Amino acid sequence: MIDIKKDENLSILNHSCAHLLAHAVKHLYKDAKFWVGPAISEGFYYDIDLGDRVISVDDLEKITKEMKKIAKSDKLIKKIELSKEEALETFKDDPYKISLIKEMGDKEIISAYKQDDFIDLCKGPHVKSTKALKHFKLLKVSGAYYKGDSKNKVLQRIYGVCYPTSEELEEHLKCLEEAKERDHRKIGKDLDLFMTSDLVGKGLPLWLPNGATVRCELENYIREKEIKEGYHHVYTPSLGSVDLYKTSGHWDHYKDDMFPVMEMDSEQLVLRPMNCPHHMLVYKNHLHSYRDLPIRIGELAPDFRYEASGAVCGLERVRQMCQNDAHLFVRPDQIKEEVAKVVNLILAVYEDFHITDYEFRLSLRDKENKEKYFDDDEMWEKAESELRKVLTELNLNFYEAKGEAAFYGPKLDVQIKSAIGHDVTLSTCQLDFLLPERFDLTYTDEHGAKVRPVVIHRAILGTFDRFMAYLIEETKGAFPTWLAPIQVNIIPVNNEYHLEYASEIYNLLKDNNIRVKLDNRDEKLGYKMRESVTHKIPFALILGDKEKENKTISYRKYGTEETITLSKEEFLNFLLDIIKNKK
Amino acid sequence: MIDIKKDENLSILNHSCAHLLAHAVKHLYKDAKFWVGPAISEGFYYDIDLGDRVISVDDLEKITKEMKKIAKSDKLIKKIELSKEEALETFKDDPYKISLIKEMGDKEIISAYKQDDFIDLCKGPHVKSTKALKHFKLLKVSGAYYKGDSKNKVLQRIYGVCYPTSEELEEHLKCLEEAKERDHRKIGKDLDLFMTSDLVGKGLPLWLPNGATVRCELENYIREKEIKEGYHHVYTPSLGSVDLYKTSGHWDHYKDDMFPVMEMDSEQLVLRPMNCPHHMLVYKNHLHSYRDLPIRIGELAPDFRYEASGAVCGLERVRQMCQNDAHLFVRPDQIKEEVAKVVNLILAVYEDFHITDYEFRLSLRDKENKEKYFDDDEMWEKAESELRKVLTELNLNFYEAKGEAAFYGPKLDVQIKSAIGHDVTLSTCQLDFLLPERFDLTYTDEHGAKVRPVVIHRAILGTFDRFMAYLIEETKGAFPTWLAPIQVNIIPVNNEYHLEYASEIYNLLKDNNIRVKLDNRDEKLGYKMRESVTHKIPFALILGDKEKENKTISYRKYGTEETITLSKEEFLNFLLDIIKNKK
Repeated sequence: MIDIKKDENLSILNHSCAHLLAHAVKHLYKDAKFWVGPAISEGFYYDIDLGDRVISVDDLEKITKEMKKIAKSDKLIKKIELSKEEALETFKDDPYKISLIKEMGDKEIISAYKQDDFIDLCKGPHVKSTKALKHFKLLKVSGAYYKGDSKNKVLQRIYGVCYPTSEELEEHLKCLEEAKERDHRKIGKDLDLFMTSDLVGKGLPLWLPNGATVRCELENYIREKEIKEGYHHVYTPSLGSVDLYKTSGHWDHYKDDMFPVMEMDSEQLVLRPMNCPHHMLVYKNHLHSYRDLPIRIGELAPDFRYEASGAVCGLERVRQMCQNDAHLFVRPDQIKEEVAKVVNLILAVYEDFHITDYEFRLSLRDKENKEKYFDDDEMWEKAESELRKVLTELNLNFYEAKGEAAFYGPKLDVQIKSAIGHDVTLSTCQLDFLLPERFDLTYTDEHGAKVRPVVIHRAILGTFDRFMAYLIEETKGAFPTWLAPIQVNIIPVNNEYHLEYASEIYNLLKDNNIRVKLDNRDEKLGYKMRESVTHKIPFALILGDKEKENKTISYRKYGTEETITLSKEEFLNFLLDIIKNKK
Repeated sequence: MIDIKKDENLSILNHSCAHLLAHAVKHLYKDAKFWVGPAISEGFYYDIDLGDRVISVDDLEKITKEMKKIAKSDKLIKKIELSKEEALETFKDDPYKISLIKEMGDKEIISAYKQDDFIDLCKGPHVKSTKALKHFKLLKVSGAYYKGDSKNKVLQRIYGVCYPTSEELEEHLKCLEEAKERDHRKIGKDLDLFMTSDLVGKGLPLWLPNGATVRCELENYIREKEIKEGYHHVYTPSLGSVDLYKTSGHWDHYKDDMFPVMEMDSEQLVLRPMNCPHHMLVYKNHLHSYRDLPIRIGELAPDFRYEASGAVCGLERVRQMCQNDAHLFVRPDQIKEEVAKVVNLILAVYEDFHITDYEFRLSLRDKENKEKYFDDDEMWEKAESELRKVLTELNLNFYEAKGEAAFYGPKLDVQIKSAIGHDVTLSTCQLDFLLPERFDLTYTDEHGAKVRPVVIHRAILGTFDRFMAYLIEETKGAFPTWLAPIQVNIIPVNNEYHLEYASEIYNLLKDNNIRVKLDNRDEKLGYKMRESVTHKIPFALILGDKEKENKTISYRKYGTEETITLSKEEFLNFLLDIIKNKK
């Protein structure tokens, strides 16, 4: 989906359409007062005070009609410049605009835009005439606190989107429909993958058996893969002392994203936002020689971040997440080889998940932002140029982004496009000269001298939560067989005659560790078949007279209409092969 | 090991020996002041104020000598009864005793015990003469705050133990030595299983790669076993709202064991001490019919409890633990069958771990304790008699224990004896009529009516933390092959000639998912063999000329002296069989 804010023309068009919306509302509701109406990534909105009136779907239709009328009548949109006094006089009936004007300097020339009988305070720019605004759609209305503060009055926020042509608008609306259908929150509910509860808390989803089965497969998959690559996994606690985070620097640069401190006897504990400090202590627990390096410490690590309650979203943005995290402790001469290995691991995993649409991003600090980034220019210069050098030597195609680094160092991020067009950081590989210093980590080199290792932070699947959200939207919940919560659904044609054979097949598959279900309810075959499709189970087996007699099975694969018959041994081998090869 | 407190005679003997200790100290340090000196499970101690003096090992020897002298001189131990005034006069030089006397009622007759020139405030009883106290040993000395309060002065606490005969004392000291050797904290450190760090926090161990490997095997083992038994696993968050725990009743009956509340925007969140409430919500997320039950929800669930910082101990007593937990939602007519299944699962698991020394305990509430137990007599009567009935019908041999129930219901606990003699609750199976009520859980019965399910809480391995502590002490860290962090250690006799063949064997085993190490350091064979034993690796393979030539391997199993030669295929099959069958 297009990001409207990122396209200058579309941004102007949508901003103008917000004015058109306000214009129409003013015609229909004389006492309406207007706060602000910006263009946003998804189109535009306007926050309007309509007293106690709540805008309904019917109202949206009425407003749309009025907007079309004004658009058609081809009103010119003109810029007007006012002195502060003139502005105060012009907007005297609208307290929201007055408060905006009062915040401006006394000498300022204030700009407004006028179309026919409607005028709005605005810096612009705008399109020339309302004629350009014919192809829009009002999408929804919701309540929004004035200035976003829950102590203030609730305004009506009307959302819409506008395009130059009806074709483009239609295309966008189709994408929106598609996105709604792919929304992992909707699919998560439909397929019983996860749930949320206010009694538990905001941003704290519960993974139901179906979702948990997928997650467990993902966890086993990546852990096995890492162990084969020479990683050592650990389990470390979800808590750390405030002193731990003062040592690491999180306290200075990341505190706002952390949970509140808990006072315990003589200790101050806090839920960890990242597990790097814990892994630094694991390294430090022993003396190391240059021969021991690299040491790769991995963990499926629960971390906790204080997201604003308005920002949490399904599994995508949560307050407790599980990271597929690891820290590699390497000698300076091993940086290149280890980064290459991480990149190769990322690519191997992407192949298994058929992820092809990705870009490498070199995320650098913003030098000006001393609050977000640890303040040591020399360290940063070294880390950034080192990582850039390695990426260049590895012949990776990457772009650079300022202000996207971690507080402790630059990152190689892998950006993927989600099925609904979001840009998501999935994997990351970060170079860190800071934490080894802060934790005084050392190893003994070949001359017996103590030297600092370099730390590489890396995550392949990112967090299991966000990865699951991505997977759901990508597959619409029709997971590949190796991940599917139920892999095979056995449907006897007639319980009376075929249940025994169906049970035989059920046991055969279960004994081979296949997640299988036997639907022996007294329902019609067609009904059961449709339900199997609704639940997006990869294989539905239909077992009737022929199958029973010939010791075969007939299956229909999800998404196909064809029924295929195989001997039971052939089917078992076919299935095991699919699962093993992650097809 | 014998619990001295539980044996009346031993308890009296040890209490008398505490007096003997004080007597000797008084002879040696004239200005010593005495607080209290009780018998304890491990023997006895006395808390003594010696000003700034810290008792050394040499001092303990001196004191022992003096105690022996007094014991040998056969002083009679006589009870004396004093009025409060007389007592205040007698103990006027000891402020600790004075403060004890002042706390007593004015009219009370105060009892003291006198032996030769030493008198101590004491209720008794005591042995008749110091002659009975010949066979003792002073074990250690440590600092202890007066009245256990860290704001108070530190006293010297001297520990000892006393037996009627030298043989019994020797036996006890041998057990102590054995226990020290088995202490899971010592072995955990020696074998790099886990570590602790003050920077992380008290009672929050970090599982190092070796320990984490064992834990991961345990987790996979029990999860697979449960899934085969029809359990569904979930992942739920470590946090819940205070309202969640008010709903469940934890807030009223368990708050003191919970972590401090975190204030978040409009929410109050707290780390969960148990995950039952989360599982109740999972059940409640759907409507259920009587045909759907039983529903078995399992989780490897991190829980958090506010243990006193002085009480935490290695992996045995921690502030963050991972429970092997599940909640079964059953119809009343399914209780017996489901409890039987849980008991069978427990017994099957014990067989895999060779646990034979266990007892079933029916844990009931203490009716008087309204604070600890939910106050509903009718509910308790029903739950306790129901569970007792089921256990009787199942022909289980059990004993009853008052005051050991959970706040919500009675429990069937399985008590095992640890290798160092501790009584540990390992598994549990609990009957709960309360939480279904509190969470308003229902299912639809065959007549369409809404009725309450019964909840069975159960844990098989208890917590992974405590189970690991138990396993370490049981095996002294020599884990069975299927659990061992490293299963096979390959040692080429000579790197120059045998490394190639050793690598071939290494790859063969690795490809078969065996945890294998190749020790190719330039060290002597004997040195490497000894190290393999120190690390308690189940199999050491010695590969030299003969093995290379004949494509065989020669192995030595941990704990044996015999070297056995097999073809490499034979060895692989032998090993896979051992792992599969948990030998």
